[in-house]
Amino acid sequence: MTTKEYAGLQSVIWAGDKLDLLDQRLLPEEIVYLPLTTAEEVWEAIRHLKVRGAPAIGIAAAYGVVLGSRQVQEGTNGWLAEVRKQAEYLATSRPTAVNLFWALDRMKAKAAAIVEAGLSLEEAKQALLDEAVTIQSEDEETNRQIGEHALSLFEDGMGVLTHCNAGGLATAKYGTALAPFYLAQERGITLKVFADETRPVLQGARLTAFELHQAGVDVTLICDNMAGMVMSKGWVNAVIVGTDRVAANGDVANKIGTYSVAVLAKAHGIPFYVACPLSTIDLNTPTGAEIPIEERNPEEVTEGFGKRTAPQGVKVYNPAFDITPAEYVTAIITEKGIVKAPFNINLKKLFEEQ
Amino acid sequence: MTTKEYAGLQSVIWAGDKLDLLDQRLLPEEIVYLPLTTAEEVWEAIRHLKVRGAPAIGIAAAYGVVLGSRQVQEGTNGWLAEVRKQAEYLATSRPTAVNLFWALDRMKAKAAAIVEAGLSLEEAKQALLDEAVTIQSEDEETNRQIGEHALSLFEDGMGVLTHCNAGGLATAKYGTALAPFYLAQERGITLKVFADETRPVLQGARLTAFELHQAGVDVTLICDNMAGMVMSKGWVNAVIVGTDRVAANGDVANKIGTYSVAVLAKAHGIPFYVACPLSTIDLNTPTGAEIPIEERNPEEVTEGFGKRTAPQGVKVYNPAFDITPAEYVTAIITEKGIVKAPFNINLKKLFEEQ
Repeated sequence: MTTKEYAGLQSVIWAGDKLDLLDQRLLPEEIVYLPLTTAEEVWEAIRHLKVRGAPAIGIAAAYGVVLGSRQVQEGTNGWLAEVRKQAEYLATSRPTAVNLFWALDRMKAKAAAIVEAGLSLEEAKQALLDEAVTIQSEDEETNRQIGEHALSLFEDGMGVLTHCNAGGLATAKYGTALAPFYLAQERGITLKVFADETRPVLQGARLTAFELHQAGVDVTLICDNMAGMVMSKGWVNAVIVGTDRVAANGDVANKIGTYSVAVLAKAHGIPFYVACPLSTIDLNTPTGAEIPIEERNPEEVTEGFGKRTAPQGVKVYNPAFDITPAEYVTAIITEKGIVKAPFNINLKKLFEEQ
Repeated sequence: MTTKEYAGLQSVIWAGDKLDLLDQRLLPEEIVYLPLTTAEEVWEAIRHLKVRGAPAIGIAAAYGVVLGSRQVQEGTNGWLAEVRKQAEYLATSRPTAVNLFWALDRMKAKAAAIVEAGLSLEEAKQALLDEAVTIQSEDEETNRQIGEHALSLFEDGMGVLTHCNAGGLATAKYGTALAPFYLAQERGITLKVFADETRPVLQGARLTAFELHQAGVDVTLICDNMAGMVMSKGWVNAVIVGTDRVAANGDVANKIGTYSVAVLAKAHGIPFYVACPLSTIDLNTPTGAEIPIEERNPEEVTEGFGKRTAPQGVKVYNPAFDITPAEYVTAIITEKGIVKAPFNINLKKLFEEQ
């Protein structure tokens, strides 16, 4: 069943010989698809947030490997070397998103297996493209399952706050944190969503409010600093966010401001849920302390609205992410089910059950 | 001793026959003084945030009464009636700031006393102008004293976070919450200030970062949603904010987002201070629940900076203020000293000592 809300607004579309990528920086004003034909263009799109959201970045990067290696004509060994080179290059586009590395590793492994299997160069290229398509369709199914599990935690009429955008735009379809809202809508369950605008880049205002509003979901936009007040009024029964990386102990890296929301939720006795696919959980990262936090350009803060909003030369601190310690996380919702504390044991178990 | 930082940048200046008002909406890009000659212009300036900050609003309104009643030629009784009428009119410009009502009440009482004393119409007009000038100079002295008390709570090298703008621009001089930073600078004490940008109108970015940076105070601008992360890093040893109204029980109304900061401060064991003159404490308001919260135009959130940042038609919740319950307030710092819990007893005592 196709949900009506982002039909035609998938963020990543393979178009036979090129990658059509929705330029998310132009939303909500303009819907523009960029035709990307090289790995360099994909790298640049990831770097400059034209595509964002951990799963969508992974999918785009997978197609980026396909684009970057398709010109090779000198046999499968040279092709494999090129696949590896392009994958390593694409891995330098963003430092934090583990999905990026996961998708690139998968593409490299697939390419090695293809060569091992003795396919012709043309067959090899097609098989690698198939792998990228599979990554994308698996993501859609994963998100539907995440949505099912998340929805089991919500009841009709509840208010749910979300931060940043872990929606259909950030993934192949449905999104992670937003998946339960789309599924609820399909089933006539009403959830009242509060979307933090999510400074500095305003993904909550530009993307979450955009895609939910377009889909007809009941969404109210607030500034980040209103979350506490809205909670104190009793309007929020749960918080659900996505994540860029979950450490083995359950610490969660997500868009800056997530930690503040988690602390506020705890202070108000509101459950704080994190929705993500297994691929976002990194058991090789022991705790959040080991997750590198990207610091971004001060101009995102001082001139983010097309107009300078702070004095010239003022110091700015602009971390892109923060770490929410596991103690603030009520549950992590994956395609394989809902995980609660102790996360160090239960996350490991989740992978062992695979 | 004049501090160098806002010399020439007082927000309200009486210029003999008109009120020169710094248009704070144009900061930090342009420094423009508006020459106001009527009560209507003052009303409009207060309403549209050209002047903001509770004390500055009160001072501007006091001069507004002078401007609104100076044309009267028909004797002091007619003049007194006009003073009262203009004061009641100016009181409708903003609903929350008690300083506005306080200053207008003081002007009405002064006018009545002047007429009672049998002054001539010209003498009466001059005496009423003198009262407005006195309100302004008292505010400067009040703020210096607030700064002294606040500074006694800080130590060299401390990190202090503030929200919105309770600075020199918001008052006659020094500000309330920012007064200790200016005094510290005069004395060679280094405080490292974190300024929340304070969505939606960005008073923290446009005003606090502006005036502190101009003064050479060490200030770092952050987005509101970074406050939790900055606290978790141990960079913040205290929070200090201004307030628009303190209720008799110590509940504090201040710019939206203050409550979130207070909850975050408590969760990190960081003291949360509120700086204000006695005139901001309203013993006639029993608790924060009785303070009306102004809801402002959704466009402040969706197109605040000359650029639309959210989809057309999306619902927005945009309260201008929130209430921080007294339990989150470590101390209220006034010109008469530092008040701690139990506030209902100690705030009353403060007035009885007068």
